[in-house]
Amino acid sequence: MKEPVFERNKHVYHNETFVELVKDAVRFFNGTPVHTLPPPESFQGTGVYALYYIGNNSLYGTYSGLNRLDYRNPIYVGKAVPEGWRQSRISDAEDSNSRELYTRLREHSRSIKAPGDLDAKDFMCRFVIFEKDGSDMIGSIEATLIKINVPLWNSAVDGFGNHDPGSGRYEQAKSDWDVIHVGRPWAQKCKGVPTDKKVILGNIKTHEAAIK
Amino acid sequence: MKEPVFERNKHVYHNETFVELVKDAVRFFNGTPVHTLPPPESFQGTGVYALYYIGNNSLYGTYSGLNRLDYRNPIYVGKAVPEGWRQSRISDAEDSNSRELYTRLREHSRSIKAPGDLDAKDFMCRFVIFEKDGSDMIGSIEATLIKINVPLWNSAVDGFGNHDPGSGRYEQAKSDWDVIHVGRPWAQKCKGVPTDKKVILGNIKTHEAAIK
Repeated sequence: MKEPVFERNKHVYHNETFVELVKDAVRFFNGTPVHTLPPPESFQGTGVYALYYIGNNSLYGTYSGLNRLDYRNPIYVGKAVPEGWRQSRISDAEDSNSRELYTRLREHSRSIKAPGDLDAKDFMCRFVIFEKDGSDMIGSIEATLIKINVPLWNSAVDGFGNHDPGSGRYEQAKSDWDVIHVGRPWAQKCKGVPTDKKVILGNIKTHEAAIK
Repeated sequence: MKEPVFERNKHVYHNETFVELVKDAVRFFNGTPVHTLPPPESFQGTGVYALYYIGNNSLYGTYSGLNRLDYRNPIYVGKAVPEGWRQSRISDAEDSNSRELYTRLREHSRSIKAPGDLDAKDFMCRFVIFEKDGSDMIGSIEATLIKINVPLWNSAVDGFGNHDPGSGRYEQAKSDWDVIHVGRPWAQKCKGVPTDKKVILGNIKTHEAAIK
């Protein structure tokens, strides 16, 4: 069989609808009620969320300042998709019974409470639930919110969203987040050489100067 | 400040446009030319791809049979997003210069050549490039193609798309894919207890019986 000649333009997908749709979802996101971290009650669903810092820790003063009158600058954006989603092992019906989004937000509040220098009360969250076929938008909306906001804990400081790597994987270094906020028990087990704390603090200063 | 009462329905996003848009992109995908693995020339872009098996390895006879007259059942679906995408460290301008999709397909052909029991000539690929803002659709389209096709190497057998875990992480077990296709040098370094080969072969049989 003769292979077709390669023509790049035959492989490029164009559809302006998507850009408008994402903007619509982002606008919806920014209009949803803001809640404590974790939200006051458990709920079903998967989706996208943002965390806003409004406390007095001097490391994140720029964020507190920017969020003084409005929840404008998230310090972290993330998504919660059902377990097994990557392997397509779950059906849409199971999706809708998942409490993954609430669980993820609660997990974040635990991460924040583990070190002594942050207070979960200083964090507020916003979140949108995507159901059924709409759940396939989750990745795109998360990516867009990260691209628009460049949240500090998604960019200059990595590792906040990490999970316990589990036994057999503790040879790796603890994340930047765990270097500056010491307390998550599993992070203490990581034996690799982490980034120097001074370097991370410098990265934070550079980042905050850029978003001011 | 009094927190608003939690009302789940205020957080649920509805938009039927997305479902139609994804279908449009999937139809476009299924109409693109099929090429060898890797494609005959390098090209710029990031996007989504599928690999189709048409060879004689008895493990994957069901796939060869189903693809006899048409490239219908991918054995693997994946995406290629620019490096640093998750951290939003790159701009859209840099996106468009990335050769990530071609690089990923070439990497897959190397994985296939590493063991002695597969031949890259027995694999064909289909791929769609998403540019600029459209690149945010990549995750959704990949998820949809996986959900529709339930490709064997995305579901019953995991690990084909893995990268070298790198020094400090070889305590983990080699993946199911590396148990049945022995040859990738870095997989040999993984010291954990992998899935039993018989179990994996059983999973493949069950999977192929289900898609026949």
